[in-house]
Amino acid sequence: MTDTTRTETDSFGPIEVPADAYWGAQTERSIENFPFGPREQMPVEIVHALGFVKQAAARVNGRLGKLDAEIAEAIQQAAGQVARGDLDNQFPLVIWQTGSGTQSNMNANEVIAGRANEQLTGSRGGKEPVHPNDHVNKSQSSNDSFPTAMHIAAARSLTDKLLPSAKRMAALLTKLANKWDSIVKIGRTHLQDATPLTLGQEFSGYAAQMQANVDRIDGVMPRLFALAQGGTAVGTGLNAPDGFAEGFAKEVASLTRLPFTSAPNKFAELAAHDTMVELSGVLNTLAVTLTKIANDIRLMGSGPRCGIGELKLPENEPGSSIMPGKVNPTQCEMLTMVGAQVMGNHVAVTVGGLQGHLELNVFKPLIGANVIRSINLLSVGIDSFCERCLDGLEPDETRIAQLLERSLMLVTALAPEIGYDNAAAIAKHAHKKGHTLKEAGLDLGLVDEETFDRVVKPETMLGR
Amino acid sequence: MTDTTRTETDSFGPIEVPADAYWGAQTERSIENFPFGPREQMPVEIVHALGFVKQAAARVNGRLGKLDAEIAEAIQQAAGQVARGDLDNQFPLVIWQTGSGTQSNMNANEVIAGRANEQLTGSRGGKEPVHPNDHVNKSQSSNDSFPTAMHIAAARSLTDKLLPSAKRMAALLTKLANKWDSIVKIGRTHLQDATPLTLGQEFSGYAAQMQANVDRIDGVMPRLFALAQGGTAVGTGLNAPDGFAEGFAKEVASLTRLPFTSAPNKFAELAAHDTMVELSGVLNTLAVTLTKIANDIRLMGSGPRCGIGELKLPENEPGSSIMPGKVNPTQCEMLTMVGAQVMGNHVAVTVGGLQGHLELNVFKPLIGANVIRSINLLSVGIDSFCERCLDGLEPDETRIAQLLERSLMLVTALAPEIGYDNAAAIAKHAHKKGHTLKEAGLDLGLVDEETFDRVVKPETMLGR
Amino acid sequence: MTDTTRTETDSFGPIEVPADAYWGAQTERSIENFPFGPREQMPVEIVHALGFVKQAAARVNGRLGKLDAEIAEAIQQAAGQVARGDLDNQFPLVIWQTGSGTQSNMNANEVIAGRANEQLTGSRGGKEPVHPNDHVNKSQSSNDSFPTAMHIAAARSLTDKLLPSAKRMAALLTKLANKWDSIVKIGRTHLQDATPLTLGQEFSGYAAQMQANVDRIDGVMPRLFALAQGGTAVGTGLNAPDGFAEGFAKEVASLTRLPFTSAPNKFAELAAHDTMVELSGVLNTLAVTLTKIANDIRLMGSGPRCGIGELKLPENEPGSSIMPGKVNPTQCEMLTMVGAQVMGNHVAVTVGGLQGHLELNVFKPLIGANVIRSINLLSVGIDSFCERCLDGLEPDETRIAQLLERSLMLVTALAPEIGYDNAAAIAKHAHKKGHTLKEAGLDLGLVDEETFDRVVKPETMLGR
Amino acid sequence: MTDTTRTETDSFGPIEVPADAYWGAQTERSIENFPFGPREQMPVEIVHALGFVKQAAARVNGRLGKLDAEIAEAIQQAAGQVARGDLDNQFPLVIWQTGSGTQSNMNANEVIAGRANEQLTGSRGGKEPVHPNDHVNKSQSSNDSFPTAMHIAAARSLTDKLLPSAKRMAALLTKLANKWDSIVKIGRTHLQDATPLTLGQEFSGYAAQMQANVDRIDGVMPRLFALAQGGTAVGTGLNAPDGFAEGFAKEVASLTRLPFTSAPNKFAELAAHDTMVELSGVLNTLAVTLTKIANDIRLMGSGPRCGIGELKLPENEPGSSIMPGKVNPTQCEMLTMVGAQVMGNHVAVTVGGLQGHLELNVFKPLIGANVIRSINLLSVGIDSFCERCLDGLEPDETRIAQLLERSLMLVTALAPEIGYDNAAAIAKHAHKKGHTLKEAGLDLGLVDEETFDRVVKPETMLGR
Repeated sequence: MTDTTRTETDSFGPIEVPADAYWGAQTERSIENFPFGPREQMPVEIVHALGFVKQAAARVNGRLGKLDAEIAEAIQQAAGQVARGDLDNQFPLVIWQTGSGTQSNMNANEVIAGRANEQLTGSRGGKEPVHPNDHVNKSQSSNDSFPTAMHIAAARSLTDKLLPSAKRMAALLTKLANKWDSIVKIGRTHLQDATPLTLGQEFSGYAAQMQANVDRIDGVMPRLFALAQGGTAVGTGLNAPDGFAEGFAKEVASLTRLPFTSAPNKFAELAAHDTMVELSGVLNTLAVTLTKIANDIRLMGSGPRCGIGELKLPENEPGSSIMPGKVNPTQCEMLTMVGAQVMGNHVAVTVGGLQGHLELNVFKPLIGANVIRSINLLSVGIDSFCERCLDGLEPDETRIAQLLERSLMLVTALAPEIGYDNAAAIAKHAHKKGHTLKEAGLDLGLVDEETFDRVVKPETMLGR
Repeated sequence: MTDTTRTETDSFGPIEVPADAYWGAQTERSIENFPFGPREQMPVEIVHALGFVKQAAARVNGRLGKLDAEIAEAIQQAAGQVARGDLDNQFPLVIWQTGSGTQSNMNANEVIAGRANEQLTGSRGGKEPVHPNDHVNKSQSSNDSFPTAMHIAAARSLTDKLLPSAKRMAALLTKLANKWDSIVKIGRTHLQDATPLTLGQEFSGYAAQMQANVDRIDGVMPRLFALAQGGTAVGTGLNAPDGFAEGFAKEVASLTRLPFTSAPNKFAELAAHDTMVELSGVLNTLAVTLTKIANDIRLMGSGPRCGIGELKLPENEPGSSIMPGKVNPTQCEMLTMVGAQVMGNHVAVTVGGLQGHLELNVFKPLIGANVIRSINLLSVGIDSFCERCLDGLEPDETRIAQLLERSLMLVTALAPEIGYDNAAAIAKHAHKKGHTLKEAGLDLGLVDEETFDRVVKPETMLGR
Repeated sequence: MTDTTRTETDSFGPIEVPADAYWGAQTERSIENFPFGPREQMPVEIVHALGFVKQAAARVNGRLGKLDAEIAEAIQQAAGQVARGDLDNQFPLVIWQTGSGTQSNMNANEVIAGRANEQLTGSRGGKEPVHPNDHVNKSQSSNDSFPTAMHIAAARSLTDKLLPSAKRMAALLTKLANKWDSIVKIGRTHLQDATPLTLGQEFSGYAAQMQANVDRIDGVMPRLFALAQGGTAVGTGLNAPDGFAEGFAKEVASLTRLPFTSAPNKFAELAAHDTMVELSGVLNTLAVTLTKIANDIRLMGSGPRCGIGELKLPENEPGSSIMPGKVNPTQCEMLTMVGAQVMGNHVAVTVGGLQGHLELNVFKPLIGANVIRSINLLSVGIDSFCERCLDGLEPDETRIAQLLERSLMLVTALAPEIGYDNAAAIAKHAHKKGHTLKEAGLDLGLVDEETFDRVVKPETMLGR
Repeated sequence: MTDTTRTETDSFGPIEVPADAYWGAQTERSIENFPFGPREQMPVEIVHALGFVKQAAARVNGRLGKLDAEIAEAIQQAAGQVARGDLDNQFPLVIWQTGSGTQSNMNANEVIAGRANEQLTGSRGGKEPVHPNDHVNKSQSSNDSFPTAMHIAAARSLTDKLLPSAKRMAALLTKLANKWDSIVKIGRTHLQDATPLTLGQEFSGYAAQMQANVDRIDGVMPRLFALAQGGTAVGTGLNAPDGFAEGFAKEVASLTRLPFTSAPNKFAELAAHDTMVELSGVLNTLAVTLTKIANDIRLMGSGPRCGIGELKLPENEPGSSIMPGKVNPTQCEMLTMVGAQVMGNHVAVTVGGLQGHLELNVFKPLIGANVIRSINLLSVGIDSFCERCLDGLEPDETRIAQLLERSLMLVTALAPEIGYDNAAAIAKHAHKKGHTLKEAGLDLGLVDEETFDRVVKPETMLGR
């Protein structure tokens, strides 16, 4: 022990830790054993969730007489600080550690004990009077605490961040759909000119897609609210008192104001993380939706003079280091890159999810970290896209009208009148000769002027 | 035109088709344009679903006065044959065609027209009196018919095949969980010896996992039951009469006895296939579950003499072409390979789903074919696994008891009595010396015999 | 035994097989144990490769005195028939079987024995005088024969199909690059107008991409030519005579005219299929390339009147069942769907590749079937795309010139003369006012006419 | 402008930046436009590579007379600081920005100009006398600089980190293979007992797998060494002087001591990143290899009393927060989690790679960041696994011998003597009765004692 360190011990013996750290021997060992550096740290959302886990456990252990009242109170105070994010700098461990997340669980146990001991004795760290395992981890195992923290972190992130972002985007798209409901434009299928629709109708499709993603997330929540806690080491709940699991879920629900429950089968919750894989699949679907919407806006905003040019995107920054005056769809690019990352994260989660063995899946930190990162990327990405792209989007009505006029696919309206084959002949003739449809139709004698003018009106081709 | 062919025409001109084929020019052109061969054919489930689409459309068109009664009747009769699978050999087209599925839609239109014409005139094929586009495809576009067929095919396959299979497996696992509820065995976490549980508890986890997958599939169904039909080319419903979409959904519901509805926003249903991506994600989750279960059974069945050997797997075939007498966990291997394929298919669906442009996603056949293949592989794989592996599984109770006895992790029960650190010391001492826990505990003086015998009983460590 | 069946036996006892089948008991058992149906059959390429395996093995066994000359000759004759594809209908087994491919290996052993026995005795099937295990499988195990067949099948498919297709496409793209080398067009970055290039330069990029993929495939070949044969059950080569592995590789090289070798470490070749995963990664890269090229051509062919319209795609079929006269980029759609499937197959191969245990990876049929399917899809897809899209592609030079003229990004040429910030100001001014660049430059007084005319010439902006 | 900020400008107008920052307007704008926070920063490896890009470009521009000598010198000095990592804290931008990496390129341009200006004038930041675009970015575009930086960063990381790690692991595995070459153990296929091999043979397979991965990485290097620089905005090299591309590649080669070259086709290098996708596929293969090896060691180390127990893994930390004395295979778990992440990253890279449009792929930061992260994770993971797992691995020879003795698969050695079917009967009989093979063979009268003892010797079954 030196001025700048103190000695902590675990079943492997003594080890020096920084004097000002709250953590103990096992955290220190993990720092040395997994040298991946700060970019790879366990997400703070999971750290905060471990705070809630320890806080709720201390309350239930105290109530059930498993912990002395003073110790229970000290633990739950310190754990509350972890949950609130006040001690984030005490969590140096990385994602790439034991697959059960044991070391992050011990990091929480040690920091909370270390902080509680400081409160009770004035001396930071150690195992007296509050012991990381015997008290903070009371009635728990990493094997149930860590997956519980994964569910809490994901549920809170979804509730606080992604769901509001997704709903905001759905609402904004609905607003734009209404606003642009009377702007008739050419439709495009196969990237080829097709029959018309309104810009509002187009955006109503995006709004519907986003709303369905909100529903998908809502659909996972009941399974996500079900917590593994109470299963302890292998799912049997050995060393946890009767009623612990249910009491714990109630405490967490009360602390987080989210309707957490105790999972009906703990064996499944420790040995597999199917619900995290499912959630990742739902995030993958959202990523697909966002990619589609961003790609469409990029396409409609292509130009300004040599592309489609139906939408004007807000200019947020200079576009090119070599081409002066260029403005690029940078928010679309950001969002589609985020989408690609979420799809990749989903495969990582799937590969981790499939490899559980017997009573424990040991890809927990991988799974938890990827799901949390996907949620964060999607949430910030959506918010930024709403603020810096959708909000400032403007239709170029002149260009839209110009393209609509030129299109050959308005011929579709004639098919019910003159038959599909005749209508096709008119379109082909016009295309070949560079004529308008009307010219071609009259030229071929397949339609008379009155019929043409009556039938071929874009504004009547909108299915209303 | 020769003896063995007849001439059919489309807007590209005349083309020879086999004289005995019901199909017409566009199908023939597609055979030539996409020469991938019979292994790559469009799944029959989608063909049958197109039969339902055409049957329901003819009924609604007839009722709404859009089709002459006789023609409507002839179409719906012929379409019914397609739906029942009587004309499967008339659908030679492959998955790798137009991304809208137009050619498979035209294949259905042509075959139904060709069959209806034969009924009405005695002459097979052609466009008179029933025209593939003007009559069979009436009020429709490929752009809404094909995604409608994808949803119908997936919903029927789930309902008829995968859901029953998954429920059967959940029920069988529950039966085994109950049957083996009193067989106490060693638990394993990190593949290392852990605290005990019963074999029944272990299987109850698998049962819970399977049941959750049933719930996940159920959760997608409402979105899958929502049909694109009525959107026609770009989602506006141009050329479809008022009430067509709703009438159509009711007819399909009646024909299939499944609660199909008309999707509230057709633009989204043509331009994207998020629900198919979501469903694929749910199948991916199921694949993860099955891989976990099959891997566990493979592990517990490893041996017979040099592995874990807690389970005896049924012998279905000789195991090795060189090692006589070998019996392998072949059903586990089949099921985990199926799982890997479903995970791969999911990425294919995701990549297809993200690339839609404007009014149309043109990866429809890819998406439809992969989802249907995944459903079929999972369903047959589960059924086979239930019949040929789970049903015949037997615990080796002698071996289970022998391993349980040896384990050091029963020491966990001592931790609440003598503290975590002392309990750890006993386990380490026993491991090092090759002693039993009791010997080690007494040797170290950390526990007395009476306490040990009272506390360390596997049958009291099951959380009951 | 009935008129239509005969009785065959294996270590599990007697079983009835169809009287006209060459196969025996184990094949029949596999048909019953894995009821996935004909769509899921093992690729014929692997069946043919097993023919080569058995043919080469018989020759070496005969030469080394391990097989009686007459039996060796009968085996190698029958195996040659399998290799040539004459007995494809005798291979009913599916991909989803034992993970070692044992049953397909036994299918080959039984059919070859059954055919050899017929030749020698007039009686089809059976184990006398030629025994499937003791003679046809002599010196082999499924564990080395099946991965050997995977390598042979992949190497032959690459050599005979994919490499010629890829080279053809690279050559065709080079031809187009040369042909269109003087057509100056607007460049696009971020889908936004950028500085000009020629259409030939654009296509030279595609040609370079394709050529690099040829190089990538060539780079895998040495590892793919290395064969597992000779490792027998676990890699030690137990029961194979000295020199068998090397003699075998030489025979296969002579039979296939490809430079196969004996893998230096057989343990690695049985226990893992890293080279197949690597190859799948190379196919994934090719799929990425093809998707990019097809997407570009789809974009440049968008229109005809409301898109970019720089390329005219050949019309292969009518485009829409509802929009008459529509022509769609169907070959691009086919090729990008193929690309998505190959990317999905790659994940399936990866998931299979990562799960090997100890001496054997038991995802062999999954891995083999996906690699072969990817090769076939890519090869047919490329050929079709070359014939039906690239070959008929035409630039719309009028449209190309029209767009070039309009562009604002020619301003880039001014930046070295008047500075980036001034050039940017001109472009922004022109964009805002709807002016030409020249008008804007003069208007702002930032450039004089002579300088402008001297500097802003698209044909001098091509980097030549 | 305040005490803590100064005003910088770009074509969008003035903006406040922190007074002590070297960066300018565009960097500041990007911080505001993409608020993802520090966890998502662009990897420093790419920042350093941009330093090399700017340093080499300044040298060539100076030499070719495109930059005043003093300015060129100031730029290359400042750029050298960036390359060495002295200014890492000046690069706050995140991955999720413009898809061309323009903002990170401008970040480098601004910081280098800001630092050079400070050197030349005493005043930090600004555009005088050194301008970020007109001088630092001279003869370049983001479109060629950023992909050049991606290749430099990947090539350096592979050379400095991953290749040494992979070679070290291959060498260590070879050492273990030699060391354990005479320890005969039971083989396992399908996780079932099989014929014997030595522990050294088993590890020789792992060594061969690792060596093949070194070869795979080597195979990508020539394409990775080819640089996009010189293509400028769209590949034509507009605004770059003759000889710039080649001179640049030589300078970078000299600065980094790696054999970089100028890519023969620049259009392909800007518009697509196939070589990064290929490299990611190679990393994916390495991840598959590592997963297989780590899984095997985890399996062989399972126990200590209820698993396979053939290997003793080093104890690095306490294993369980609830089960005292437990030691877990934590380095295996870390490495397999790393593997899963690399597989996920690969899909992200693939999805980014496939979406390039026309002259530019705009998923560059996503692709670059994932490849760099995969390299780093693999390299640190391998080093840690070597040091903390492989290095301390010990065979449990007693256990290995005990299992070998018990096995039934030694019967395989009898097959060439008494036939496959008889050998199978002996194994089955022994299994059923719980007898040894010898007992069973004699009991059934299928082999005599002398033959048995002569033939069934594990040490002669090793293929030597």
